[in-house]
Amino acid sequence: MNTAEAKRSEPPSAAVSAVLGKSVDLAGQALEVRGYDFNTGIDYTALLASYRTTGLQATAFEAAVQQVNNMIEKRHELVPIEGEGTSVRSACVIFFGYTSNMVSSGLRENIRFLAQHKMVDCLVTTAGGIEEDIIKCLSPAYIGDYTLPGKEMRSKGLNRIGNMLVPNNNYCLFEDWMIPLLDQMLLEQSEQGMKWTPSKMISRMGKEINNPDSILYWAHKNNIPVFSPAITDGSIGDMIFFHSFKKPGLILDIVEDIISINRLALAAPGTGILILGGGLIKHHICNANLMRNGANYAVFINTGQEFEGSDSGASPDEAVSWGKIRSDATPIKVHAEASLVFPLLVAETFARDFFARNKATVKPTDEDGKHKAGKVDDK
Amino acid sequence: MNTAEAKRSEPPSAAVSAVLGKSVDLAGQALEVRGYDFNTGIDYTALLASYRTTGLQATAFEAAVQQVNNMIEKRHELVPIEGEGTSVRSACVIFFGYTSNMVSSGLRENIRFLAQHKMVDCLVTTAGGIEEDIIKCLSPAYIGDYTLPGKEMRSKGLNRIGNMLVPNNNYCLFEDWMIPLLDQMLLEQSEQGMKWTPSKMISRMGKEINNPDSILYWAHKNNIPVFSPAITDGSIGDMIFFHSFKKPGLILDIVEDIISINRLALAAPGTGILILGGGLIKHHICNANLMRNGANYAVFINTGQEFEGSDSGASPDEAVSWGKIRSDATPIKVHAEASLVFPLLVAETFARDFFARNKATVKPTDEDGKHKAGKVDDK
Amino acid sequence: MNTAEAKRSEPPSAAVSAVLGKSVDLAGQALEVRGYDFNTGIDYTALLASYRTTGLQATAFEAAVQQVNNMIEKRHELVPIEGEGTSVRSACVIFFGYTSNMVSSGLRENIRFLAQHKMVDCLVTTAGGIEEDIIKCLSPAYIGDYTLPGKEMRSKGLNRIGNMLVPNNNYCLFEDWMIPLLDQMLLEQSEQGMKWTPSKMISRMGKEINNPDSILYWAHKNNIPVFSPAITDGSIGDMIFFHSFKKPGLILDIVEDIISINRLALAAPGTGILILGGGLIKHHICNANLMRNGANYAVFINTGQEFEGSDSGASPDEAVSWGKIRSDATPIKVHAEASLVFPLLVAETFARDFFARNKATVKPTDEDGKHKAGKVDDK
Amino acid sequence: MNTAEAKRSEPPSAAVSAVLGKSVDLAGQALEVRGYDFNTGIDYTALLASYRTTGLQATAFEAAVQQVNNMIEKRHELVPIEGEGTSVRSACVIFFGYTSNMVSSGLRENIRFLAQHKMVDCLVTTAGGIEEDIIKCLSPAYIGDYTLPGKEMRSKGLNRIGNMLVPNNNYCLFEDWMIPLLDQMLLEQSEQGMKWTPSKMISRMGKEINNPDSILYWAHKNNIPVFSPAITDGSIGDMIFFHSFKKPGLILDIVEDIISINRLALAAPGTGILILGGGLIKHHICNANLMRNGANYAVFINTGQEFEGSDSGASPDEAVSWGKIRSDATPIKVHAEASLVFPLLVAETFARDFFARNKATVKPTDEDGKHKAGKVDDK
Repeated sequence: MNTAEAKRSEPPSAAVSAVLGKSVDLAGQALEVRGYDFNTGIDYTALLASYRTTGLQATAFEAAVQQVNNMIEKRHELVPIEGEGTSVRSACVIFFGYTSNMVSSGLRENIRFLAQHKMVDCLVTTAGGIEEDIIKCLSPAYIGDYTLPGKEMRSKGLNRIGNMLVPNNNYCLFEDWMIPLLDQMLLEQSEQGMKWTPSKMISRMGKEINNPDSILYWAHKNNIPVFSPAITDGSIGDMIFFHSFKKPGLILDIVEDIISINRLALAAPGTGILILGGGLIKHHICNANLMRNGANYAVFINTGQEFEGSDSGASPDEAVSWGKIRSDATPIKVHAEASLVFPLLVAETFARDFFARNKATVKPTDEDGKHKAGKVDDK
Repeated sequence: MNTAEAKRSEPPSAAVSAVLGKSVDLAGQALEVRGYDFNTGIDYTALLASYRTTGLQATAFEAAVQQVNNMIEKRHELVPIEGEGTSVRSACVIFFGYTSNMVSSGLRENIRFLAQHKMVDCLVTTAGGIEEDIIKCLSPAYIGDYTLPGKEMRSKGLNRIGNMLVPNNNYCLFEDWMIPLLDQMLLEQSEQGMKWTPSKMISRMGKEINNPDSILYWAHKNNIPVFSPAITDGSIGDMIFFHSFKKPGLILDIVEDIISINRLALAAPGTGILILGGGLIKHHICNANLMRNGANYAVFINTGQEFEGSDSGASPDEAVSWGKIRSDATPIKVHAEASLVFPLLVAETFARDFFARNKATVKPTDEDGKHKAGKVDDK
Repeated sequence: MNTAEAKRSEPPSAAVSAVLGKSVDLAGQALEVRGYDFNTGIDYTALLASYRTTGLQATAFEAAVQQVNNMIEKRHELVPIEGEGTSVRSACVIFFGYTSNMVSSGLRENIRFLAQHKMVDCLVTTAGGIEEDIIKCLSPAYIGDYTLPGKEMRSKGLNRIGNMLVPNNNYCLFEDWMIPLLDQMLLEQSEQGMKWTPSKMISRMGKEINNPDSILYWAHKNNIPVFSPAITDGSIGDMIFFHSFKKPGLILDIVEDIISINRLALAAPGTGILILGGGLIKHHICNANLMRNGANYAVFINTGQEFEGSDSGASPDEAVSWGKIRSDATPIKVHAEASLVFPLLVAETFARDFFARNKATVKPTDEDGKHKAGKVDDK
Repeated sequence: MNTAEAKRSEPPSAAVSAVLGKSVDLAGQALEVRGYDFNTGIDYTALLASYRTTGLQATAFEAAVQQVNNMIEKRHELVPIEGEGTSVRSACVIFFGYTSNMVSSGLRENIRFLAQHKMVDCLVTTAGGIEEDIIKCLSPAYIGDYTLPGKEMRSKGLNRIGNMLVPNNNYCLFEDWMIPLLDQMLLEQSEQGMKWTPSKMISRMGKEINNPDSILYWAHKNNIPVFSPAITDGSIGDMIFFHSFKKPGLILDIVEDIISINRLALAAPGTGILILGGGLIKHHICNANLMRNGANYAVFINTGQEFEGSDSGASPDEAVSWGKIRSDATPIKVHAEASLVFPLLVAETFARDFFARNKATVKPTDEDGKHKAGKVDDK
């Protein structure tokens, strides 16, 4: 470049107009980006509220909070049941889906809270999501590390799930627990003509585990159906396989369950869907909602990416094209590994609503600003 | 900084030793990184071979080629069947899994090639992976765009899968095709005591479609079992649901199928696993291989990430900790959206092997350097 | 499969031993996985503490909190300055890096808090990270949406950054602000022999903006160096380019700055690094720490992936191989988009420490459990 | 569910119409999805052409091939130079950007091919992208593994880059090579008033290395400018730092370089941009193209994701909103780790064009279908 040549000239007008073109005025028409000011102190509720104007996924998170709160509010609304006189029912049925790693992790305790207080109406999970809940009632999983070597872990009998470890003994305990149950199921099939489906089996498992730590215990107790069409795809399948040698003949029918979940969606005055992770459980809930021309509210939390054309990574807008979410809904996807954000989401939605509605018996924070254990009447 | 102060001194020895420490010599002990030299011309086979020393995922791809070629070679090996005299069987059973988006995409033609020439021994896919194969025999899917708006697509009846579109009419055609089949299945159940499972239903679908474009047609013809435990999770489930109003009672049992896939793995002298995508299909194949203390060869192609602790993103080494892949195996994960690399992988493995073994009847490239359609004897 | 054949046999011992092998006992040797129990109420501090045993990235987040608190504690420690008698200095120098999108988002307010109260010792950012901070003092950015179409936005003069919008007018205001500054810089260069570097220019920008909302204002005021070796790569570069036509000759030297940041690392008794995002800023801080054979503490928060071999996605362990982080350190990577977790991290580390040390003048929460604005003495 | 109740009814019309709504006809209006048929043999050119109708990222790859071929075709077109009589110049200037890991990997050989035959007009890379090219002329990098432990590698002096290893000795050799060059540069600065910029330094490095394996050698020889505004951010910076103790005073000005790249873009009749990876190099090329109201052609290959609002992950459409890519362009992003696809892209674009235009002297494949080394006249 000849810099001499450039001296004392004007900058090229083409460049100036490309860089410094006029813009429309957004003042008053859009929210200003502004984050939390820590000079005001550490106030988590205010901090999470500030996510609305923080931009990026913080803004998506806050929109998810609103979306879930809208579901909850609608769910508290009562509407007449068509053709049933003065009978009423909730205006919104909430479908909640989660992959097995959510149950392996401590999100299980959060999900259990939702089931315990009957804050959702239908659960969908994978085989692992079923068995890990039961197994944790028998023996705990442990915190490990993502880089623990597979060969060494195998020799120690430690099964790795990300940065968690499940000792193989847990599966031995699970076998001890499952085999009598399978005996009993087979007996009821042959003697009473019981027609087992995955959801019926899960309900029985919840009853048998009889442990308030369990998601399935509360789902059973609160009549929340739990669907898991591929329930054989995991340790449960291993146990069924082993059991089949001694006592063959058990049948698990998936037709009746697909009819049930589809009817549940179809009959609902309104629906909301909340899904952690991807794969089967995400598609299963969305597909059921297609029966009613789409969910009214939807929140996806996962790390899937749209470019691969998988349902796991599919955006809510792809689901709209299928009629799985309504065209007039405002669904939200939060791009995050769920353990980071789901506890916060529950805090700002289900838990907040629960404590607001149960003021007399529970309180999250006592008068002197210190936290005390809330007293929750499970009766 | 006072630069004057720094003048004419020595660089600080701590920094110099941190930056310029000695290293062990790798010459002759590791491959030098070196990519393809286009000055030698455009030779795709040489180019793909150069991936071995290209580093990053190119190196992973080339290792996957070796891994699959090892599976194939082992599969051509014959070993005596234990306890069956002089009978022999293949030394390696190949499990091949793929998510539904692979079938929605043009990878379906590649997978059909594998089934047609009986180059794999077991297929595992989702409901979508079953129905999309059949539907494509009825009407095509189309190339669209990732950004087509959901609301507009819904009003046009165009279902989006990433950058592909499936017109809703395709599902209407599918219904026309499915309902008589469901009638027939129910009839056989009630009249002949047929006990349906997803794999039996899929085999029947392959027979009925009777179309050489179909993966399932060839799987049926070549007795390759296709497992899909959650076969109700898709349009097939919709059809079963609709059908159930007119003719209730169909039963699809998943117990018999889990026994079958586990027995297949257990009986195999050796196994190789090749999986495109994540979720159910990945776990299902890996879990079956746990029955035999792990697969001998394994290739995963997906975009999942380990940090989230999902099975989709789980590394092969995590599978080793569970006994799903053997501790002495050299499994490979290629981090890629499969449509970019699977056709190349097939070219360098199954197709290359196929043409090498069928020299007399087919040739990929004719004498004058131009390509001609290979003649394949399907007999 | 012939199920008859299977009747009343034992399950295959190979399978049973593969599935139900013994494991070592982890009880008391590793933390049990357990999440937050909402029955105890909504207590965010307890909730975030529970992340330790929640597994997955929640556990990584909590480890990052510990790592940053360790940096802060060490930074409050005083050690003698070698060869300077009784003089003392902080035992830990904290390098904080962030990409420009962090400043475009509301994380800017969090970063400003760190600079305002002099809680970090060195900032490294990109050109965008510099200019967006200044521009926000002139006019705000707005919340938009990820799917706003580029062509329409261009015609409206609205520049999109993820789900945020920066009106082009903001850059016009920035030009009005920058040109006199460039005039002055050139004048000082020609008349006073001023040798400008990016860091010196940034310090001057912080002085001139004279606005307590600005990160750079506080960095200037608190003598925190801000490094940005490619400061011309953005709107600042556009302005320098335009300015050069009228008044050529400005020189920005990057040699002096690399010497400065390397000396800063080299002289530090200990260092901690905290980096949001990837690319230049991540490498720049790590490379400076190589001069001292590695940082003592390190936290990376980003979405980069290791398989691509970029420095953005490089794990802390890759940095250990280079000597950028010490071999005996316990560095943490949190796989997350920073806007979701950085405010929470600041709350649990820098802010908590700040309010603990400034009890007399500020308090995050008042006696009756309601939040009041803390009074912070900036003097 | 009471299945008896459901017997012999019609399926609910709401569900049927939601599932089986009519669709517009796409036949003849959009491409049918169809993948490669291996029954026709293994023909890589046909296989890659089939990516157009394969869907997902295969379709994106094929669109990238078209986009690059459009750039190349336009570049061969000659247009009059405004205000310079009958003088002509190329109608399209191609900017090519790449991160340092591309040079660490075997993509370096592909990039060298582009520089050698002067097929691109401007290179932008990071410090690592400069130094790794030089260092490879001194000593090779090696293939390693992603999981090699950092602490052990550090003790062996092996620096890991993904699954590659660079022995520390390579940096010692680089120091031996750099220090005399820095001496010479400082001498020219002090004695001849040389004003160094990163691009001038890089050009000198290319001249001095004098090795046809080097990208920079050919860039120098072919007068292709190489921009790297943060050239001090790497081993080059380490060497400059060490050198400054003995011989302080070197100045590297980044103002002149930003003027140069902006002028290059501004003066171009048309531009194409091709960028591997994200961060600085992506933004730098895009920002220069803003000077001319946007590039005419654009291809991004990277793994960045839009949700995080970084420029690395920004879609081409975000760049359109800024005026960095023209509103009427058809830019393409391929979501892939570049080592998997860039060699194939070069094969189908630059290399194909090169061999087509140099038929007399080179040929990629000889008459009998075997590959022979092409003879390339570098003159």
